[in-house]
Amino acid sequence: MNKTITLAQGNGGVENNELISKVFYKAFKNEILEKSEDAAVIQNGSLAFSTDSFTVSPIFFEGGNIGKLAVCGTCNDLAMMGAKPKYLTCSVIIEEGFALRDLEKIVRSMKSELELNGAIVVSGDTKVVPRGSVDKIFINTTGVGEITKEGISSNKISKDDVILVNRDIGCHGATIFIAREGIEMDSELESDCKSLYPQVKALIDAGINITAMRDATRGGVGAVLNEWAKQSNICIEVEEERIPVRDEVKGVCEMLGFEATSLANEGTFVLAIKKEDKEKALEILKVFEDNSYACEIASVTDEHLQKVILKSSWGTKRFLDTPTGELLPRIC
Amino acid sequence: MNKTITLAQGNGGVENNELISKVFYKAFKNEILEKSEDAAVIQNGSLAFSTDSFTVSPIFFEGGNIGKLAVCGTCNDLAMMGAKPKYLTCSVIIEEGFALRDLEKIVRSMKSELELNGAIVVSGDTKVVPRGSVDKIFINTTGVGEITKEGISSNKISKDDVILVNRDIGCHGATIFIAREGIEMDSELESDCKSLYPQVKALIDAGINITAMRDATRGGVGAVLNEWAKQSNICIEVEEERIPVRDEVKGVCEMLGFEATSLANEGTFVLAIKKEDKEKALEILKVFEDNSYACEIASVTDEHLQKVILKSSWGTKRFLDTPTGELLPRIC
Repeated sequence: MNKTITLAQGNGGVENNELISKVFYKAFKNEILEKSEDAAVIQNGSLAFSTDSFTVSPIFFEGGNIGKLAVCGTCNDLAMMGAKPKYLTCSVIIEEGFALRDLEKIVRSMKSELELNGAIVVSGDTKVVPRGSVDKIFINTTGVGEITKEGISSNKISKDDVILVNRDIGCHGATIFIAREGIEMDSELESDCKSLYPQVKALIDAGINITAMRDATRGGVGAVLNEWAKQSNICIEVEEERIPVRDEVKGVCEMLGFEATSLANEGTFVLAIKKEDKEKALEILKVFEDNSYACEIASVTDEHLQKVILKSSWGTKRFLDTPTGELLPRIC
Repeated sequence: MNKTITLAQGNGGVENNELISKVFYKAFKNEILEKSEDAAVIQNGSLAFSTDSFTVSPIFFEGGNIGKLAVCGTCNDLAMMGAKPKYLTCSVIIEEGFALRDLEKIVRSMKSELELNGAIVVSGDTKVVPRGSVDKIFINTTGVGEITKEGISSNKISKDDVILVNRDIGCHGATIFIAREGIEMDSELESDCKSLYPQVKALIDAGINITAMRDATRGGVGAVLNEWAKQSNICIEVEEERIPVRDEVKGVCEMLGFEATSLANEGTFVLAIKKEDKEKALEILKVFEDNSYACEIASVTDEHLQKVILKSSWGTKRFLDTPTGELLPRIC
């Protein structure tokens, strides 16, 4: 690794994984951490526990703000483990001179989003640092959720599973990029930032046989599929044409030179479920707003273990690798 | 309140409390939060849950570094509720260009301190932000602990209690001030940064009747006593001469124009215990390194409810108010 930390090491992709494993996992080594799930499972499988710090810039964007994102992000990580978000902590680091009005707006968004999850903030911390020590405001949320469906794990996906996505991908990454660069676009593009627990609850309540779920944040759907291929020692074959991407997002991808599968999402999740439950699951997902493009995107094979293969509509195949490089810093 | 956030609003004192109550408590209103304990008590009283973000500058100082502090700080908050620190999350925000060697040193300190607490990191998050977006590194730790002694609360201190401190006060605040200002001092002063769970465990194992405990971090012993006076609706009378303060700390207080009771500590805690257990508790505390000055500092009366009175050796009395003003930003 480099002797100094690079932006790429926070990308949710290859360099980020390397930093995490060589520095953090190496020191903190334990069975729970090494499972690399979206949330840790503690207390004999009864609780999920997850943390995230949010540094997004700009702090207000189409479809959300850093406060909404901070509640969605952590609650979604809990939901992905089949847990009902229950208790959150909220720790804010604020730059001296930050507008009180903006802080209040952020906190109000957090409150609304907490209500959607049926969760409460039970402990907090407020730091104010001198001008220049932080850019505006960073928020950490850490959550505890009660596991309502046991055994969900990205370490046991098999050929009996099919891989779905709940909606079209890349909206958060594309929205932040546009906002940051000040690009004028005549579109209704907004971040997909959303609490996923209601969708997860509906799937669990309907008895869908869920093997794994993961929200496709930093590193996008590409990172999730590659993590799953490695963790479950499987090959994932993706039908490129099936991946739902709206035109505005495709446009941003061309400007950036990124693939839509590398763009961050904040209300989009990938599901591995038993094949026989596919139609029922899609029906349930499509009831929710913004989910009209919910679909199957991939299947599990043993062609190239630990690899993700992208199949084009012309029949060609290539590997979809874990994203690498700087991608978009401060995307979440 | 001001229309923009001020450094004083992060001081652990009056302005900080106002910001917390008018913005955060107001929005997040719930019974657990409003108890204002060092850690939230969740899951029917079985678990404690607490968060802290660390922004200390400089990140390396005599007696510790930001990593050691991040583990001590959160584990101590759990210990103060009679909980054994068990699971921690660790979320770091690193500035692009930060030295990998320094990160490794910080993480190694975290590992050692986790071992002292018998706790493990089960979930994490790593963000890297562009140069200038954060000053070097900020760390959030959030912990879950198992409550081994129920009912500890700063809301029920009474005249049956006596108030102790485990060691001399103000070393962390004084050390950080000296390091930051580059003052050359011919002294062995170092931060008191330390995990308090072993001391708490010894007290609990010996059957000491503990009413409340609180580590005197931002705002110092003065903030703790004032919070307790309000929360328990009591008057706390402090014998000024009994408060242990070493000479180097007194010297720093003179330079700063602060009282030692406003200086931050990171391994110093205030205890309210039943009077009859005083001698036994002090004996137990003094077995621990650095605790030779453990002593009784105050008694509980009903003279001025919700106030803290400082009694000098000449028999004069004055109020010891909650600290106010900027104090030392980025002290923890």
